[in-house]
Amino acid sequence: MQGAIGVFDSGMGGLTVLKALRAELPDADFIYLGDTARLPYGTKTPETVRRYSEQAARLLVERGVESLVIACNTASGLALKHLQNVFAPLPLFGVVEPGAQAAAEVMDETGVLVLATESTVAGGAYQASLSAISPDIPIETRACPLWVTLAEQGITDGPLTQAIVQHDMREGGPNTVLLGCTHFPVFKSFLRQQYPHHRFVDSAATTASAVRDELKQVEGRGSTQFLVTDGTDRFGRVGSYFLGEEISDVELVDL
Amino acid sequence: MQGAIGVFDSGMGGLTVLKALRAELPDADFIYLGDTARLPYGTKTPETVRRYSEQAARLLVERGVESLVIACNTASGLALKHLQNVFAPLPLFGVVEPGAQAAAEVMDETGVLVLATESTVAGGAYQASLSAISPDIPIETRACPLWVTLAEQGITDGPLTQAIVQHDMREGGPNTVLLGCTHFPVFKSFLRQQYPHHRFVDSAATTASAVRDELKQVEGRGSTQFLVTDGTDRFGRVGSYFLGEEISDVELVDL
Repeated sequence: MQGAIGVFDSGMGGLTVLKALRAELPDADFIYLGDTARLPYGTKTPETVRRYSEQAARLLVERGVESLVIACNTASGLALKHLQNVFAPLPLFGVVEPGAQAAAEVMDETGVLVLATESTVAGGAYQASLSAISPDIPIETRACPLWVTLAEQGITDGPLTQAIVQHDMREGGPNTVLLGCTHFPVFKSFLRQQYPHHRFVDSAATTASAVRDELKQVEGRGSTQFLVTDGTDRFGRVGSYFLGEEISDVELVDL
Repeated sequence: MQGAIGVFDSGMGGLTVLKALRAELPDADFIYLGDTARLPYGTKTPETVRRYSEQAARLLVERGVESLVIACNTASGLALKHLQNVFAPLPLFGVVEPGAQAAAEVMDETGVLVLATESTVAGGAYQASLSAISPDIPIETRACPLWVTLAEQGITDGPLTQAIVQHDMREGGPNTVLLGCTHFPVFKSFLRQQYPHHRFVDSAATTASAVRDELKQVEGRGSTQFLVTDGTDRFGRVGSYFLGEEISDVELVDL
């Protein structure tokens, strides 16, 4: 769709970013692509994440998008610069820098705890972005792969969530927690209840503002197309947890 | 390698089957292929599982294997017949029927609880195999995606394992538990400790006996090659949990 904003994620987590984008840019047209056949990206090597992300970006460009949001933290952290080189001068946005910005705005002297996938943590993009804001920010990181699986089950509270969250959160350390994976915002209300003295931030809202500020004028019909590489039914069912509304009309594509 | 036995899995879980095969056929040569770039298969559609499995089988055949074991429960359940058609007359073995056989041998009148991935449960292959043995076996099934993630973290006991296991096990129902995913045998000793009145069976040993009985004479140098589609280091590291020994010399291949 000519002039649309492409939104790419490994699966459904990026729907939290799409939701924020639609709130900021209600007239824009969106094409969302979830690489559901090959998710999760969070355990893959940088090379494979870059290769898969490039294939996804190419498909969206062929569909006529004129800007692109990499809604997946892992792909943002490992592939954003590569994609900006390949697809220049297409405006291309990631979620890592906006997420770091959001955390830096609310943090206190205890610094920031980054919860993310294995590959995002290992790639070091959040650590680099936070250090670029200020080199003295105390940073802790933790890989939380079970949170991804849990979110995809639609389980967001109760004893199982508590056990998994407790395993990764622990006491002490930074009071500001950066949810560095697009799956994790579904746990926000549970986390706030369990850890009332912590601040939980994610990149969805700050990414959406950054995109709006940069693109300025976006016109369209306020439509959204959904493309996935596998499991249109499952995407509709599980995706509704993330988007906060029903999803119908999902198109199957091959990457 | 001419005459070798190919062993295919979505990732590392199939190493539990390889371990059993090597014990039964110590002189055989093995080529193990883990499709680590695209794991897990347990949430993919039957069409995608069949397509990916065929690509994997083709690569192993091109490498000269003269028989093939589909060590992944999801691929066995959804793709075995398809692969047998495509690659006939190559001897091609799955893990579902041997797993059902193993459960039927030890079960009592309470029947069998099948723990597996979402796609394996939805595909119904275990239910069909058990019913083929005897149509009256009481069968319960449960999809346990968190067990997969947990196993891949190398976490096999402790409070987190307990919370996740409790969530899926519950009391009552069948006393015989069929671990219908190659990741799950790593929890066996924990499960036996926690549920001393249950019987836990997996398909690794029965699959290995079935392969030995069918192939009869297998000669070679007792060697094993490891091929993966992503993350050779991670495969070596995490795979050692499943194989029970160190893994070195992992080759990266493209499917």
